[in-house]
Amino acid sequence: MSERKAVLVVGAGDATGGAIAKRFAREGYVACVARRNAEKLEPLVAEITAAGGEARAFGCDARVEEQVLEMFATIEREIGPLEVVVFNIGANVQFSITETTERVYRKVWEMAALAGFLTGREAARVMLPRARGTIIFTGATASLRGGKSFCAFASAKFALRATAQSMARELGPKGIHVAHPIIDGAIDTAFIRDNFPERYALKDEGGILNPDHIADSYWQIHMQPKDAWTHELDLRPWLETF
Amino acid sequence: MSERKAVLVVGAGDATGGAIAKRFAREGYVACVARRNAEKLEPLVAEITAAGGEARAFGCDARVEEQVLEMFATIEREIGPLEVVVFNIGANVQFSITETTERVYRKVWEMAALAGFLTGREAARVMLPRARGTIIFTGATASLRGGKSFCAFASAKFALRATAQSMARELGPKGIHVAHPIIDGAIDTAFIRDNFPERYALKDEGGILNPDHIADSYWQIHMQPKDAWTHELDLRPWLETF
Amino acid sequence: MSERKAVLVVGAGDATGGAIAKRFAREGYVACVARRNAEKLEPLVAEITAAGGEARAFGCDARVEEQVLEMFATIEREIGPLEVVVFNIGANVQFSITETTERVYRKVWEMAALAGFLTGREAARVMLPRARGTIIFTGATASLRGGKSFCAFASAKFALRATAQSMARELGPKGIHVAHPIIDGAIDTAFIRDNFPERYALKDEGGILNPDHIADSYWQIHMQPKDAWTHELDLRPWLETF
Amino acid sequence: MSERKAVLVVGAGDATGGAIAKRFAREGYVACVARRNAEKLEPLVAEITAAGGEARAFGCDARVEEQVLEMFATIEREIGPLEVVVFNIGANVQFSITETTERVYRKVWEMAALAGFLTGREAARVMLPRARGTIIFTGATASLRGGKSFCAFASAKFALRATAQSMARELGPKGIHVAHPIIDGAIDTAFIRDNFPERYALKDEGGILNPDHIADSYWQIHMQPKDAWTHELDLRPWLETF
Repeated sequence: MSERKAVLVVGAGDATGGAIAKRFAREGYVACVARRNAEKLEPLVAEITAAGGEARAFGCDARVEEQVLEMFATIEREIGPLEVVVFNIGANVQFSITETTERVYRKVWEMAALAGFLTGREAARVMLPRARGTIIFTGATASLRGGKSFCAFASAKFALRATAQSMARELGPKGIHVAHPIIDGAIDTAFIRDNFPERYALKDEGGILNPDHIADSYWQIHMQPKDAWTHELDLRPWLETF
Repeated sequence: MSERKAVLVVGAGDATGGAIAKRFAREGYVACVARRNAEKLEPLVAEITAAGGEARAFGCDARVEEQVLEMFATIEREIGPLEVVVFNIGANVQFSITETTERVYRKVWEMAALAGFLTGREAARVMLPRARGTIIFTGATASLRGGKSFCAFASAKFALRATAQSMARELGPKGIHVAHPIIDGAIDTAFIRDNFPERYALKDEGGILNPDHIADSYWQIHMQPKDAWTHELDLRPWLETF
Repeated sequence: MSERKAVLVVGAGDATGGAIAKRFAREGYVACVARRNAEKLEPLVAEITAAGGEARAFGCDARVEEQVLEMFATIEREIGPLEVVVFNIGANVQFSITETTERVYRKVWEMAALAGFLTGREAARVMLPRARGTIIFTGATASLRGGKSFCAFASAKFALRATAQSMARELGPKGIHVAHPIIDGAIDTAFIRDNFPERYALKDEGGILNPDHIADSYWQIHMQPKDAWTHELDLRPWLETF
Repeated sequence: MSERKAVLVVGAGDATGGAIAKRFAREGYVACVARRNAEKLEPLVAEITAAGGEARAFGCDARVEEQVLEMFATIEREIGPLEVVVFNIGANVQFSITETTERVYRKVWEMAALAGFLTGREAARVMLPRARGTIIFTGATASLRGGKSFCAFASAKFALRATAQSMARELGPKGIHVAHPIIDGAIDTAFIRDNFPERYALKDEGGILNPDHIADSYWQIHMQPKDAWTHELDLRPWLETF
């Protein structure tokens, strides 16, 4: 008889999603990791398995409702109850307003907001009958501020934040913990290394966010007892101006 | 030789959009009014004309890029420079999270955010060479707060607010005034009359917003000199809790 | 029999307070202007009088309860009902945290928050029986953001904002309009001229706030009908980054 | 040779302050606990000692600069370096605006804001040369919202939040972590038990905040590595509306 508990990380392609999956796997959760191209998840699954954990990769375009539904059904049927669902798809782009195409504005929203809504709603559906579970949406600086040249990205992140807030207000009193951490700073990724070398040089003194530390925060959020839940918190390197 | 100045109100179907069009028409602007079904604009155009103003109706689905582009081109070519563009499409719906369909979440965003982005971007395009103009996006309570059961609506209104903020930060220093008034209360409409009779009963003592007074605020925003621009303000009946 | 209406501007020493007094005097209000040293108000009173208005100077340390009480009593008894009360005392100082003395932290709060509370409370007392009136507290960038080296100033302005918000929520439904405009930028004053010459050089193109335009906004706030009141709005030069 | 590390909790009178002191004592910190009346701290000191920890009580009126200075000097001289300073004095009062006396408005500010500033500033002074340390200010619902009848309390809590923000922006890049958790809900105290029995009845299902869980959050904040610091987070029972 199974006692397995599952975590799902949608957007497990980048450093942060992978670190979150590994963190929960270390705690005994079956790490279900999803991104569009499942093959790219192989190293992550291998790493989790090698460390004694259990992982399963899902190729899923989270913008497509049927694919999301199918993934949730598969996990609940074949693996175990989803205790934690993390939505972690980013879509950071920068364009002046007149150079922002309809396609970009729509696509960024589909990736960062619509996919988050679909993921969050399906999580709610499986968790509500159990009156238990944690849903975490990764936020960013652009979740709070519509900066110059961030029209498309900020619009999508604001939308995701509203989705998280609305779900928290509805689902909290039904026993489901919805959180929206705001990552305010550069994360230790290949992208930052290649494009912001000056910033990356601050890595050793803590100038960029370590994905493992973000993952620790997500784990702590999930561990919070019901009387002291956090909905929103910021995570920021000590050197970061804000 | 023409000295005509144009105002465009996208979402001129309801009380507020119509009142704004009439207010600017009274000040000598050619009121270009847009909604999906142009025929429904006939009474508004007739009213403006009867009052000695000038108006022109546009059938335009503001979610469709080509239609927006064509409308802007027509106005600039045939009528005069757009000095003011108001985006006023609402899409207030209420559903619990599990009853929010993908179609609703997407449609509300297309109406309240995507259409606003397209309208705002095209306004920027015609105004930037003139380094002049006012763009106003109508906000709501849900622009600031993702309330329970307002997941779709708040997501779209948050997205629109980010769009307005980002445009204000980019376009302000280029001479274009971008504002985002937040209407926090019931407006005097048939919808409120029919569905919230107790609230509507407070109309005579100022318990619901008079569209003409909203229009006055929009006019004042447009009239603000360059050294004292407002980006965001709230408009709320005196009785409204907040 | 008197039909006189009074406006009181507490902190009428600087450009903004004076401009507000003149604006309301022009509309027929008796301009009661207050600052610690009444003699310094003579040029303002003379200017208002010369323009055909009526003004009266009050030497009042608004941090001292009895002085505030006496001033309100005198105005209501000798001049007329206070329809508008504006609290406009600033106290902008900049110190690193370790160089912020207890005296500075306290004094800035007494000037910018305690005096505002006393002024607002006394305004509420005279206005409540009439269920009518407008109370305006001048806010600043530091009302929304505790910036580096602005510990004392931001603490006081945050406190004043809370006072304004709390009063708005309590007094709005009793017919009293409480507003908190946020001035986000340099104002055209001798201080800016002498200390920020590069900024002052932008005056002719609208790079610094004209006190008369701030005063226009305050007048508009007072004129808003009861169904469409603004509690908070920002005022910012077009060139200002935010 | 001493390797002792100290934590200081100012406002250790209530449940929360005590729980924080016990939490850090359990981790090996010498718990310096302060309130006006040192005698009332005896049970807390006894409890910490009995559990194998070390504690020291300070009678200190944190509104009085010299007393704060003396306490910091004593701790640094006799006990060890202050690694963590928590300011936890509350002052929740409720009065309509016209019934809020000058004395109340001032006293609440002195307790909740001035004392916080003094505590924070002295913490900064001892921590800056070490480029290390954590300063935590306890926030409340009223830190974010000036509710009706909360004029005095919200003004003070807003002021404290500005102080925390300003210190975070100045001290973060100097290696000192400044945080401002917002406790949004009733805490398990005698006050809640006696005055809000219906709310207290929800204790067993997590309807009121357990001070030990708040303390866990404070500990986690202190443990955050430098690349992922939180400045603000909310803590709220699952049942709480917000």
